[in-house]
Amino acid sequence: MNAAHGSLPAGDGLPDGRRRAVIESVRPEVDCGRFAAKRVVGEWVVVEADIFTDGHDRLGAVVRHRPAGEAAWTETPMEPLVNDRWRGRFRVETIGRYEYTVAAWVDRFLSFRHDLSRREDPGDIAIALLVGAELAEHAAARARGDDAAELAAIGRRLAGDEPLECRLELALSERLLALMRQYPDRSLETHYDKVLPVVVDRERARFSAWYEFFPRSTAEGGERHGTFESARKRLPYIAGLGFDVVYLPPIHPIGRTKRKGANNSLEPGEDEPGSPWAIGAEEGGHKDVHPELGTLEEFRKLSVEARRLGLEIALDIAFQCSPDHPYLESHPQWFRRRPDGSIQHAENPPKKYEDIVPFDFETDDWQSLWRELESVLEFWIGQGVAIFRVDNPHTKPFAFWEWVIGQVKRRHPETIFLSEAFSRPRVMHRLAKLGFTQSYTYFTWRNTKHELTSYLTELTTHDSREYFRPNLWPNTPDILHEYLQHGGRPAFMCRLVLAATLAASYGIYGPAFELVENRAREPGSEEYLDSEKYQLRRWNLDAPHSLAGLIARVNRIRRENPALQSDWSLRFHSVDNEQLICYSKSTEDLGNIVVVIVNLDPHHVQSGHVELPLDELGLDAAQPYQLHDLLSGARYLWHGPRNYVALDPHRSPAHVFRLRRRVATERDFDYYM
Amino acid sequence: MNAAHGSLPAGDGLPDGRRRAVIESVRPEVDCGRFAAKRVVGEWVVVEADIFTDGHDRLGAVVRHRPAGEAAWTETPMEPLVNDRWRGRFRVETIGRYEYTVAAWVDRFLSFRHDLSRREDPGDIAIALLVGAELAEHAAARARGDDAAELAAIGRRLAGDEPLECRLELALSERLLALMRQYPDRSLETHYDKVLPVVVDRERARFSAWYEFFPRSTAEGGERHGTFESARKRLPYIAGLGFDVVYLPPIHPIGRTKRKGANNSLEPGEDEPGSPWAIGAEEGGHKDVHPELGTLEEFRKLSVEARRLGLEIALDIAFQCSPDHPYLESHPQWFRRRPDGSIQHAENPPKKYEDIVPFDFETDDWQSLWRELESVLEFWIGQGVAIFRVDNPHTKPFAFWEWVIGQVKRRHPETIFLSEAFSRPRVMHRLAKLGFTQSYTYFTWRNTKHELTSYLTELTTHDSREYFRPNLWPNTPDILHEYLQHGGRPAFMCRLVLAATLAASYGIYGPAFELVENRAREPGSEEYLDSEKYQLRRWNLDAPHSLAGLIARVNRIRRENPALQSDWSLRFHSVDNEQLICYSKSTEDLGNIVVVIVNLDPHHVQSGHVELPLDELGLDAAQPYQLHDLLSGARYLWHGPRNYVALDPHRSPAHVFRLRRRVATERDFDYYM
Repeated sequence: MNAAHGSLPAGDGLPDGRRRAVIESVRPEVDCGRFAAKRVVGEWVVVEADIFTDGHDRLGAVVRHRPAGEAAWTETPMEPLVNDRWRGRFRVETIGRYEYTVAAWVDRFLSFRHDLSRREDPGDIAIALLVGAELAEHAAARARGDDAAELAAIGRRLAGDEPLECRLELALSERLLALMRQYPDRSLETHYDKVLPVVVDRERARFSAWYEFFPRSTAEGGERHGTFESARKRLPYIAGLGFDVVYLPPIHPIGRTKRKGANNSLEPGEDEPGSPWAIGAEEGGHKDVHPELGTLEEFRKLSVEARRLGLEIALDIAFQCSPDHPYLESHPQWFRRRPDGSIQHAENPPKKYEDIVPFDFETDDWQSLWRELESVLEFWIGQGVAIFRVDNPHTKPFAFWEWVIGQVKRRHPETIFLSEAFSRPRVMHRLAKLGFTQSYTYFTWRNTKHELTSYLTELTTHDSREYFRPNLWPNTPDILHEYLQHGGRPAFMCRLVLAATLAASYGIYGPAFELVENRAREPGSEEYLDSEKYQLRRWNLDAPHSLAGLIARVNRIRRENPALQSDWSLRFHSVDNEQLICYSKSTEDLGNIVVVIVNLDPHHVQSGHVELPLDELGLDAAQPYQLHDLLSGARYLWHGPRNYVALDPHRSPAHVFRLRRRVATERDFDYYM
Repeated sequence: MNAAHGSLPAGDGLPDGRRRAVIESVRPEVDCGRFAAKRVVGEWVVVEADIFTDGHDRLGAVVRHRPAGEAAWTETPMEPLVNDRWRGRFRVETIGRYEYTVAAWVDRFLSFRHDLSRREDPGDIAIALLVGAELAEHAAARARGDDAAELAAIGRRLAGDEPLECRLELALSERLLALMRQYPDRSLETHYDKVLPVVVDRERARFSAWYEFFPRSTAEGGERHGTFESARKRLPYIAGLGFDVVYLPPIHPIGRTKRKGANNSLEPGEDEPGSPWAIGAEEGGHKDVHPELGTLEEFRKLSVEARRLGLEIALDIAFQCSPDHPYLESHPQWFRRRPDGSIQHAENPPKKYEDIVPFDFETDDWQSLWRELESVLEFWIGQGVAIFRVDNPHTKPFAFWEWVIGQVKRRHPETIFLSEAFSRPRVMHRLAKLGFTQSYTYFTWRNTKHELTSYLTELTTHDSREYFRPNLWPNTPDILHEYLQHGGRPAFMCRLVLAATLAASYGIYGPAFELVENRAREPGSEEYLDSEKYQLRRWNLDAPHSLAGLIARVNRIRRENPALQSDWSLRFHSVDNEQLICYSKSTEDLGNIVVVIVNLDPHHVQSGHVELPLDELGLDAAQPYQLHDLLSGARYLWHGPRNYVALDPHRSPAHVFRLRRRVATERDFDYYM
């Protein structure tokens, strides 16, 4: 019997044949472990695996985990579910990378115990007890302190001369089970063949509300061009709306060659400001600020003030140049020249973007290009920036992003990267896998109930949720969807509520959004008329039709309801009206449940019956429950799964209910939790 | 421009950053390439992958494949489907192992051509043509023979002084496209990060009809115990039934200690023969034959005669011993002893199997045990056996099977292993993945329409079909399902047709099956009364109720209809009666389509309307089509998707239709193919 505990001689060509446990299909596992799953600090990593062995022996299994770079594993036990599936979990406590894997072993004591409890023949029981005695004895040798003595004593008693019934009871006792579980024989354990990575971000990676605005449009009074200074004065307004990330389009010097004019004109007037994405002029490039906005010093002041208000600046990273960018002189080898000697501007024939020159990532000098772009990120991190919204990452090589994000996050693991890739599914997913913290989504174009339901179900339930964190934007400076163009103020309210409650991260481009800016440049176009991309705008923040109040309320609801601060609990519920959508989010313990119902029709009152899964929501079908509308303050008492709703888009196109269960008797004053 | 074609300097810590193509999600891929997909000689391996790059450049991609061990890859082109999914395929021509992987590259010529076809500005076109000239020139350097000269000439013309329209036409010509496709610039290509294995078996691995019988029950006239000689006389009968594999339970000496008697009795009479699975006695062990069956020489004669009749012997491999097996003396270290010194017999408390002693695969001497068991397989291969039906593989370590099957198939790649693991899904799948050629299934217990539909859909459409080849058995010596116990002759007919037409491989345990042996040992048991496992039986093959005629006909239908010779085309079709099941199988070109309808109710006539997907079956909805019942010979003319059927289980519980499409006009005599 002792033999099985011995060391393993290496076979001549044979595998280590006595390790009998099998571990398969570990989840989460992204592309066979090539990429990391994502979590934020304090979250659980729930690890599942198929674990089994030959015959009918019993198994033990653990999840092994550690912060990357540490040598020692921490272990947490796994428990069997059904059908050979096991589950364990561990909590990630610090920002950075973790690793995890699974170990399992055939547990002779558990097998012995299982068999013993079923034995009928007293002769067999007597012999089995001797086996148990041996197992306890061996465990005693592995045990520490008092446990060792106790196990040795139990071993002696099992093999001793007490009556069979006593020894059987002892062998099957919970006490022995507990001791043996503490000191299993793992000499023949199996390790899963991969060590899997998880990237742990700070909480804002999962839960964030973004507000994009153009600093140059914040001029007050007689000024023409806004500055970091005037932008700083805008911050309390944005903080008041309840956002936590303030995202600025590029703040660098803007090229003059082929500069675009208002409404994308190719013949701009002398004093038109140009697109901020045409980066670089004689005043500098990606590490410089546009002189009209102010100085680096003033930018830092803006950043400090933002942090004081609970806001954080996100900078736009657009790795492209205007024809006037200093790089074109200092590093001409980073750009492609055409056979006629002219520089290759950006294009997607027949479209031309002559104010933009892309880097040639196939240049022989690609290594110095990569390092320079890395230094751009490092530069802004040095200025206090920890969030980057990356412009069109899908037009630069995937390998570059994986490398540069890896480099930056190794040194600054708190950095957050938002991928602005409005591209094909595989492309967006690859960017998320290789390291982008959050991703823009197709939400901007998903407006019907069917579209929203299927897309958000995909985002929140498919395996891709392990790495793809959605950030929902109803509008951007590039996209004014026709639903917003034609739906009036109710359409904006509807989309705001959807974005803010369907996903834990969302953003708006303001003040265009809250001021219901819905004029397109031409019919059929998603471009804004008089887009801020090409001209300065002045916004009347005090306009009576502003949605500021609603936005502030929705953001407060998000902060007060943890159910809205993560994505995976999202469930859609049936409503018998295609214009009404209903869904819920909840915390794991069901302590906080939010039920949202939105009228997708911005023109007409819509009504219908909502069907809630009472069981899943922890509700007693025999008891009424309260729905507290956190938007209007109204409270409704519902009974059973099926209840009637009606929503007038001109008053409020949505209910955002906190579900309050009956927790005491009706004699209590406040009897809903 | 030349730069991009240069060699790649290794970066200091940087990845090879200019390889821009991405390859993901290659299929087939079993457990990240840990296990092989399975094919038989002559089949295609259809390889799919997600392939894309940054930006809007065009790509080229190939499947690379080779017999394992060869250095050179063969390549076949991949074509894009939708959504960045690409597909290519290759045919496997010889038995053994193949490898495959995927390569992809950004194709500058294809990108150039795509852009050029969309350019509008003549100035841009003129410059682009110079780029095209360069690309052609570089391709000329890669090209061979006349192609090189032609490409060089085209290059010169593109940069020459012919009118722009002429040069544009040349640049976009199919001729240039064909040439450039032949000589792409692959200097910056990406290779998928895994090389994936495929095991190629002979055709019988995919398409086989098995007949199991006990040689000892073939005695004629005055003999008591059948012999290899009497079994040999049974072979023409089995060949006449149309089977191709004859599977024999163990043929080794049978232990005497704790021998089981008739009906599993623990107190057998002196002359009872015992279970063939209690292997080993003083006459020998796993490499010896039971003296009462005859000699090894006579076994070889049996095997030769089988091959002459188009049959092949499958031997039972049961790696376990009777207490009398010579191994217990020669290698006592391979068995576990209990603390009282007694040998550990097989058990699953409270059940005991005292006539069986399992090997202790955790023995220190496991390596010599593995090698000895390997030598058992080699011994029988030496006797002409190429098919093994492995008894209870799930009670021996997975690592052992992976090793031993790998060893044997490296030397004898024609060997087929059938896994008799009636166990949990993960366990059965692991055995299939690690190398078993075919697997027993849950079919034996799947009797209702819902059960059959969902289970066979899983077997034939899920990813597991890449490695799990089902073999359907309506009965075995261990399992007489209650459906057969109570359904009479129609139940046997029904299950025969289902097994033989749902899967390309099936088997029966005869003559019990064709003689409708349906007496269970006791109510609620699946064991046969007077089971051949424990006693000799005599069977009257000429009994009038024998299903021999039906079986012979069904096996002939299988041989004549290639649709029934593989599994992946299986599709179930709607019938508005839960007792009627309808499905079809077809060849890839739809040249052979078989539609099967079975009445699952063995007692009553059942009728209903069958709904066929005319489109999928290549049928013209406006034309009638003929269903030729290959069982009865009757022909039916059907119109449209919905048609009526009625089946009387006492006459024939099934239609096995060959679908014949109209291929000419009604003036032709035989106008259905």
